[in-house]
Amino acid sequence: MLENNDKSSTPLEKIGEFGLIKQLTKDFKIFHKNTIKGVGDDAAVLDKTNKNTVITTDLLIEGIHFDLGYMPLKHLGYKAVIVNLSDVYAMNATAKQITVSIAVSNRFPLEAIEELYSGIKLACDTYQIDLIGGDTTSSTKGLLISITAIGQANKEDIVYRSGAKANDLLVVTGDLAAAYLGLQVLEREKQVFQVNPNSQPDLTKYNYLIERQLKPEARKDVIRIFKNLKVKPTSMIDISDGLSSEILHLCEESQVGCNLFEEKIPLDPQVIATCEELNLESTTIALSSGEDYELLFTIDQKDFDKIKGNPNFTVIGHMTDKNEGAHLITRANQKIAIIAQGWRSF
Amino acid sequence: MLENNDKSSTPLEKIGEFGLIKQLTKDFKIFHKNTIKGVGDDAAVLDKTNKNTVITTDLLIEGIHFDLGYMPLKHLGYKAVIVNLSDVYAMNATAKQITVSIAVSNRFPLEAIEELYSGIKLACDTYQIDLIGGDTTSSTKGLLISITAIGQANKEDIVYRSGAKANDLLVVTGDLAAAYLGLQVLEREKQVFQVNPNSQPDLTKYNYLIERQLKPEARKDVIRIFKNLKVKPTSMIDISDGLSSEILHLCEESQVGCNLFEEKIPLDPQVIATCEELNLESTTIALSSGEDYELLFTIDQKDFDKIKGNPNFTVIGHMTDKNEGAHLITRANQKIAIIAQGWRSF
Repeated sequence: MLENNDKSSTPLEKIGEFGLIKQLTKDFKIFHKNTIKGVGDDAAVLDKTNKNTVITTDLLIEGIHFDLGYMPLKHLGYKAVIVNLSDVYAMNATAKQITVSIAVSNRFPLEAIEELYSGIKLACDTYQIDLIGGDTTSSTKGLLISITAIGQANKEDIVYRSGAKANDLLVVTGDLAAAYLGLQVLEREKQVFQVNPNSQPDLTKYNYLIERQLKPEARKDVIRIFKNLKVKPTSMIDISDGLSSEILHLCEESQVGCNLFEEKIPLDPQVIATCEELNLESTTIALSSGEDYELLFTIDQKDFDKIKGNPNFTVIGHMTDKNEGAHLITRANQKIAIIAQGWRSF
Repeated sequence: MLENNDKSSTPLEKIGEFGLIKQLTKDFKIFHKNTIKGVGDDAAVLDKTNKNTVITTDLLIEGIHFDLGYMPLKHLGYKAVIVNLSDVYAMNATAKQITVSIAVSNRFPLEAIEELYSGIKLACDTYQIDLIGGDTTSSTKGLLISITAIGQANKEDIVYRSGAKANDLLVVTGDLAAAYLGLQVLEREKQVFQVNPNSQPDLTKYNYLIERQLKPEARKDVIRIFKNLKVKPTSMIDISDGLSSEILHLCEESQVGCNLFEEKIPLDPQVIATCEELNLESTTIALSSGEDYELLFTIDQKDFDKIKGNPNFTVIGHMTDKNEGAHLITRANQKIAIIAQGWRSF
């Protein structure tokens, strides 16, 4: 699907780097007044503001972070933006701008890169993000996307990983483990397809899982909910590498311990059903699987009434003194030390 | 030299992503008060300021932008920072922070990555830059560096590519073409070395060229000189892709033409001597060769007295009405249209 053998395709060497950048960025809108100059100079320029700036960056590499065998380019572009915005929201900040750098081998025609950028543009439109710069080059192998996201927040609103105190409640948004199971389903279907290219799989019963893998969303809505509810988390992180890994980050940065209750971990019915089908232990998957892009945060107990009953939030535990360590309390009331099982890139 | 066969080397999978980031960033200093939080959270945090922010990003890929056969890792780290700072200075802004993302294949041991970061740190120390974040991952092939640089300037001081007017003087800093010739010398020595690994070449007579290729500097000093001389260029760009390409950018963005005088183009004696040795036409090389990281700018004629006689600056031409086009005036007083011959990544 990606090889440059379509008669209507345009080789990249024909259009050149500057032509490519113009072609790819011409339809992007500017949403924010503080974006003075976007693409087209040595650097982008942002107006001064009375807020603080947050900056985060992520690198996505073909063969490591994604497989174009089941990840359509448009979805990849969308997801590449989302994973960066998620980090901005995890600071309780508003994402405003991104830069996008790509390296592509010559097996990609212009039309493939346009498809990638259509996903980037969809994310920018959906989340009101200004594309303000980037770099475009060739690669010796495969596709690579490097995105930097810039956001803003009042200094007093910014939430670090380091503010949790003993007895704070540990809360998670949405539900966990679906993106990982979506990947398992897609991997399986890819293998089936390789054996029988005419197979027409019915993936309806996995639709939520696949959507979570191919078109994840970042929790911009939660930042607004915090503002409306007048809740400021004491610490926060986004769940990209798995619940256990993120809990340990909060514990380490905040110098606290934690009790996590297995029975409280929010799982979608499709997650539970698919874990049974694939003979996987759903709690293990929730603890160790990445790419959920939900927010994990702690709040002071006095704020509990503000979030109680809100369908976006699930209280899954509470923080303890540091010397108590970080533990999972199982349904059988066993206490098991939490270890980092998150996704590792090496 | 890079293969992981040294007994004292540490495979990256042993240290893991978070361990690696800690190890690599622990010795970096923070120079700027507005860097509130650097590495270690979902995003870096910069304090509010009454200045504008400029942001630029560059991607460097092994086999496309550099060859580890003659580019030592420490130099590569240094240069990767420099190319980004150069873009910030080209806005007449002060560079303050960078994020550094790297992807490395498992042929690189920890010690190689530390060597790369020692060059990044040297650049940060020399230019007073805070390392505030990044991403570290594995690659399927080779080494890749993606850097984003953040700078600041008063709104009224920022210089775009678009402000040149007819009759403005065209000025360049330093001298041109040395980095490209340095690359030619290194490429030649690499081939000699492949034939005879015991060859001990005397590269003394190319030392300036090789230094310009392996350890370029960005013109932070020039931004200070502008301030001291009370000169604000009407337009500016850094020379990364060759003089002709950059002139055409200024002409297009400013909607003006240009007369460039061949005899004025500043060339180091080593450039002239090496062009003769390699049978290259030095003007062609100066027009088309990249990686000089000098600044090309225009000033109003009334500012000429302020820069006259300053050894950092050479007036090489003047801008004209747009309909006159962009031309090189040769030593023989011929008028030749300037075409983009710059380095193309596709």
